[in-house]
Amino acid sequence: MSSAGPTIGVFDSGFGGLTVLRALIRRLPHARFAFLGDTARLPYGSKSRRTISRYAAESAQFLVREQAAEFLVIACNTASALALEAIQDAVPVPVLGVIEPGAATARASTHSGDVLVIATDATVQSHAYAAACQKLGLRAIEKACPLLVPLVEEGWTTQVSAEKYRGAQAVTATPQVLVTENVLRIYIDELLAEAAAQGHNSDTLVLGCTHYPLLRPLIESTAPAGMKVIDSAEAAAAAAVELIHERGGDPFDSEPTRPTQIACFATDSVEKFERLGSRFLGQPVGKVQLVDLGG
Amino acid sequence: MSSAGPTIGVFDSGFGGLTVLRALIRRLPHARFAFLGDTARLPYGSKSRRTISRYAAESAQFLVREQAAEFLVIACNTASALALEAIQDAVPVPVLGVIEPGAATARASTHSGDVLVIATDATVQSHAYAAACQKLGLRAIEKACPLLVPLVEEGWTTQVSAEKYRGAQAVTATPQVLVTENVLRIYIDELLAEAAAQGHNSDTLVLGCTHYPLLRPLIESTAPAGMKVIDSAEAAAAAAVELIHERGGDPFDSEPTRPTQIACFATDSVEKFERLGSRFLGQPVGKVQLVDLGG
Repeated sequence: MSSAGPTIGVFDSGFGGLTVLRALIRRLPHARFAFLGDTARLPYGSKSRRTISRYAAESAQFLVREQAAEFLVIACNTASALALEAIQDAVPVPVLGVIEPGAATARASTHSGDVLVIATDATVQSHAYAAACQKLGLRAIEKACPLLVPLVEEGWTTQVSAEKYRGAQAVTATPQVLVTENVLRIYIDELLAEAAAQGHNSDTLVLGCTHYPLLRPLIESTAPAGMKVIDSAEAAAAAAVELIHERGGDPFDSEPTRPTQIACFATDSVEKFERLGSRFLGQPVGKVQLVDLGG
Repeated sequence: MSSAGPTIGVFDSGFGGLTVLRALIRRLPHARFAFLGDTARLPYGSKSRRTISRYAAESAQFLVREQAAEFLVIACNTASALALEAIQDAVPVPVLGVIEPGAATARASTHSGDVLVIATDATVQSHAYAAACQKLGLRAIEKACPLLVPLVEEGWTTQVSAEKYRGAQAVTATPQVLVTENVLRIYIDELLAEAAAQGHNSDTLVLGCTHYPLLRPLIESTAPAGMKVIDSAEAAAAAAVELIHERGGDPFDSEPTRPTQIACFATDSVEKFERLGSRFLGQPVGKVQLVDLGG
């Protein structure tokens, strides 16, 4: 397997983590990537830490043992929140999650020191973002937004940029996009009310789920003016590249004439992965290979 | 285990099937019920037939072997659609799904012979309702509505009856309920457009997911006037009682002084089950016991 050259493994419970892979490809366009979506067992968001740790460790072992991954990015907020240590214990390569990079980018952005986080139920219940923010001297208020992932998967989003969207709202807003806007408004209003009740002066909003980058234009147009939006997928990709460079050069991206190599794997629902994945990756995902991790 | 008396086993991938249990309890108020929600592996809706069959068979075996169930109701449309035969092969007791009873009730309701079905992705992709309807001489158009389950679980529903809701819409409609109404309107409009394009004259709408009974008032107020709404949870409970009586009396409900006995089990997320389950069951679910089916 290692004949393919050094590989960066990217793991998610589903295919939302393709937004992290997309951000990695932009930074390492000549690298080889192996992406695994544990689609047979998604969503991790509704499962316990014990179950998530077992699933995530098995998935990480597949990428390292079967795909010769020498660096792992956990492109799944729930697994990063609940199972990062279990994964690090399970494989002998560096493992980076999305939580700490998201918190670090929020610290670089905030002036007040008060940040907001939206994520899935399990990520919020883990309070991993609040803990990571606290370590950096920030106060965070987290909110679970369970409707956002299915809205993204339904495609009830707009692809245009926030600027363009603001300018052409009356033209481009379909009933589907209006639903998503209204859902975002409800969630963000509830979050702002909670922040106000706790005396916070929040100026930064962290997207703590890899599906949410597809909602970024709508979130930016719904959030209060001046609120900075941090994409944890971008933050994780930037941190991964930094860590790779720190560890002595870049074995993953050393052949500047080689095109990006992407091998995608899923544990189930290959059809849905192939159908929806390109929206997250920003290019066709190609043929997705089915793997059986048991369970 | 059988010292508790004859038991009716009810199985779902989550806790939505508690709407079927609720309908059963109304008909058999002195019976003992064992309900299993395979919450560690939900949602079945996004998984393959192979995976769903294995999970459902393991769950059915738990209810029969560990809980001495002598009759099984598969209170899960996806498992009924994709795994009914696999379950019947896996256990030696009668097994009833929700699809055929839903189709039979639609036949009793429709005048035109054209029915509509809303359900999860996997139920629709199986075309199990269309096939069951066709066997009964009906034409069916099915539509996947992936946002409805998360909307119900968010509690963005109204508990009041359709009549009351119509009368007091301006007073009771919260922004959350308005979102759900708008989502229903989009789905139902798309379904009606599809039916019209195919030359159908649909007069009956089947709720092909056990979560949907909690949306019934909103669905009834959103659907065209005169459209009859069939609740597959009610239909399955009625069919189960009929089948039990046909098979020689009612061993499950023979002690008219005994209160209903309900034992609830889940494979994960007991907290969420206990928190949300009462809305589906219409009474407290009590203590939910955690069981490990592996995988």
